[in-house]
Amino acid sequence: MELYEKRLSGETLYEGKIIDLCKDNVLLPNGATAIREVVKHHGGVTVAALTDKNEIYLVSQFRYPNAGVLVETPAGKLEKGEEPLEAIKRELKEEIGAEAENYYFLGTFNPTPAYCSEIIYLYAATGLKTGEQHLDEDEFLDVKKIPIEEAVKMVLDGEITDGKSQALILKTFMLLQDGSIHKLLI
Amino acid sequence: MELYEKRLSGETLYEGKIIDLCKDNVLLPNGATAIREVVKHHGGVTVAALTDKNEIYLVSQFRYPNAGVLVETPAGKLEKGEEPLEAIKRELKEEIGAEAENYYFLGTFNPTPAYCSEIIYLYAATGLKTGEQHLDEDEFLDVKKIPIEEAVKMVLDGEITDGKSQALILKTFMLLQDGSIHKLLI
Repeated sequence: MELYEKRLSGETLYEGKIIDLCKDNVLLPNGATAIREVVKHHGGVTVAALTDKNEIYLVSQFRYPNAGVLVETPAGKLEKGEEPLEAIKRELKEEIGAEAENYYFLGTFNPTPAYCSEIIYLYAATGLKTGEQHLDEDEFLDVKKIPIEEAVKMVLDGEITDGKSQALILKTFMLLQDGSIHKLLI
Repeated sequence: MELYEKRLSGETLYEGKIIDLCKDNVLLPNGATAIREVVKHHGGVTVAALTDKNEIYLVSQFRYPNAGVLVETPAGKLEKGEEPLEAIKRELKEEIGAEAENYYFLGTFNPTPAYCSEIIYLYAATGLKTGEQHLDEDEFLDVKKIPIEEAVKMVLDGEITDGKSQALILKTFMLLQDGSIHKLLI
């Protein structure tokens, strides 16, 4: 089946700090037209930071849109044009005060591809040297580390609801289990 | 650490078909203020539809924001006020032409909780009776079923990039493996 949609015209409705909003007219495969509302975002990164005992770092932070505290893997936004690996190194330093010896690239994650361009780059990191947190001025979060098996249980029990963290924790655990994470070393 | 952010004021910048956009001023835990851009969305559902041989249904569709075809678990938007289970039943019928005997609730998924209120409800379904697809007029997708082990491999290899599908496929597989999915029957 032909699936492609062609942009006919569009306008930018909002240019913001984190996101822009566009509204495009598109040509559907059957020749009809439709409106596509698109949230544009530079993308983000998240990391499974693992100690030598396979503990994983998790951060708790307030997420305003649903007014609740979520438990998540450390994460951050990409600056325009920034390499994902550079962003991972910065976020590790800021959020848990760590530098890592080894980085693994675990693929990409489209959080909500129907209406948002954001792509999140998934990483794991091992060989951590931890020092002091260096949070941004407007960043408030609690950090802890727990055995990865416990984090998996929190995902399966529905306690970790953040999407990227669910995928990253389960992916990392399965790749550690079968040893294939080593092929993803960068 | 105090993490809560309090809304001080705000405005709705856009009211659309799929999303609304708001911009709020909030009070941070340290007494400073900040802007929060919030995409509002009614929420969605997605389902791991499993045959008696543990094959899983996947749909391929064009996703406009990144101009590519993604492989995903069947999914749909909630109508305002709609129960997630009703939406799952509708999407199963529309996208793969199936009715299911058993439904399992696998928790919720926040696709991008920093700036979007969307919550996706994750389900599995078994005891499928398949008939004919009944797609919406502006919906174009290819359907296939593959062994769930193969879908897991596609997630681990980075071939399935859709976030909700990554989490749902790995979660379903692990819950099937240890038999605990039966506790989630609704």
